[in-house]
Amino acid sequence: MHRVKVRVVEDALDANNTIARANRDDFERHGVTVLNVMSAPGAGKTTLLEAVLREGVGDLRVGVLEGDVQGSLDADRLAHLHIPVTQLNTGNGFGGECHLDANMVRSALPALPLDEIDLLIVENVGNLVCPAEFAIGEDARIMVASVAEGDDKPGKYPLMFRTCELVVVNKIDLLAHTDFSMERFDYYLDAVHPGVERMQVSARTGEGVEDVRAWLARLPDRAEAPA
Amino acid sequence: MHRVKVRVVEDALDANNTIARANRDDFERHGVTVLNVMSAPGAGKTTLLEAVLREGVGDLRVGVLEGDVQGSLDADRLAHLHIPVTQLNTGNGFGGECHLDANMVRSALPALPLDEIDLLIVENVGNLVCPAEFAIGEDARIMVASVAEGDDKPGKYPLMFRTCELVVVNKIDLLAHTDFSMERFDYYLDAVHPGVERMQVSARTGEGVEDVRAWLARLPDRAEAPA
Repeated sequence: MHRVKVRVVEDALDANNTIARANRDDFERHGVTVLNVMSAPGAGKTTLLEAVLREGVGDLRVGVLEGDVQGSLDADRLAHLHIPVTQLNTGNGFGGECHLDANMVRSALPALPLDEIDLLIVENVGNLVCPAEFAIGEDARIMVASVAEGDDKPGKYPLMFRTCELVVVNKIDLLAHTDFSMERFDYYLDAVHPGVERMQVSARTGEGVEDVRAWLARLPDRAEAPA
Repeated sequence: MHRVKVRVVEDALDANNTIARANRDDFERHGVTVLNVMSAPGAGKTTLLEAVLREGVGDLRVGVLEGDVQGSLDADRLAHLHIPVTQLNTGNGFGGECHLDANMVRSALPALPLDEIDLLIVENVGNLVCPAEFAIGEDARIMVASVAEGDDKPGKYPLMFRTCELVVVNKIDLLAHTDFSMERFDYYLDAVHPGVERMQVSARTGEGVEDVRAWLARLPDRAEAPA
């Protein structure tokens, strides 16, 4: 009797990490630094990217991979920047996947002009839970938190704030119109990720955007530096 | 040789629906109407509940089931209302589950005082994708969308807005300070759920809260009416 022994990969995250490493190898071979941008829905990732990329990021050639459940609303908003934007929809399941995973990003690799860019910015699906659990082959992660969401979010969604290199507090133009306390936010943030780098920004008014741009411009050097 | 045939439940959503029906039977047996409140993180579900429940919901005895990845920040905020609040944490996985499912709610049933309440309000995990896919045994769903999230969200997360009976647009006190257009929001909303009932509210200032309270007070009668 012919028998086939099937080894079940029990841990989906383990499989994801394997693929993420393969993605990372491919990105490195092409000299592309990859940034994973995460936030809740409506925190302003796309508006921030528009504001940052409008004037370019130093000498870097930038490409964007847009993750959305469905549609291309965000990609359309970036079209005027005249940089390569690739749309990746997660909506093949019943209601769509709530995050990007390494395999989805892998499926997008053939569509990415890796030889023509130095920095790939991946805008993840808006969600404060699952994107943090799935590496996609990135060198760094930015977490964007909106003032309008309230100052308690690091305490409620700790993994997101723990697994990023930079926390951007966006919509600071709304500070005067909400009960958001930066002191409380910092308190909750330091409890889950002590001392993580943070910036205060209004993508809408442009305040603080230059800081994010400068951080992005330094990213390839930091990614190359030995850990 | 002893053989055991294992039937694999291939569709996790199918299993979820089976458990959701069991939950619903239990709720009905106790005469409890169940409302599933969904939104993105920071849209203001808890603040809205505080504002609504502060003055009670007609003659209804209300209980709350708080779904969170971890912690009890929201439940603590409701403590002063002197109604039964039960905390349900989804954080047993690596980074926690991004939604409530029927089985999680089932595990909370013994902790719920079903004989002492008429209306159970379940505050789901903040997320615009997966909560819509998982019935928990509810009679109705409310979707809370914040003005600060932008007016395009129904177009980007259609299932959430399609599977609810009421859309509450919260934080209308921020209308003057954002680029949110109610007309565009309605356009996107009607494209995915034509004519769904909607209300404009500021849980912070109290504007429109009475409408939500009145809707909740009518909910048991509507749930009992033949479909």
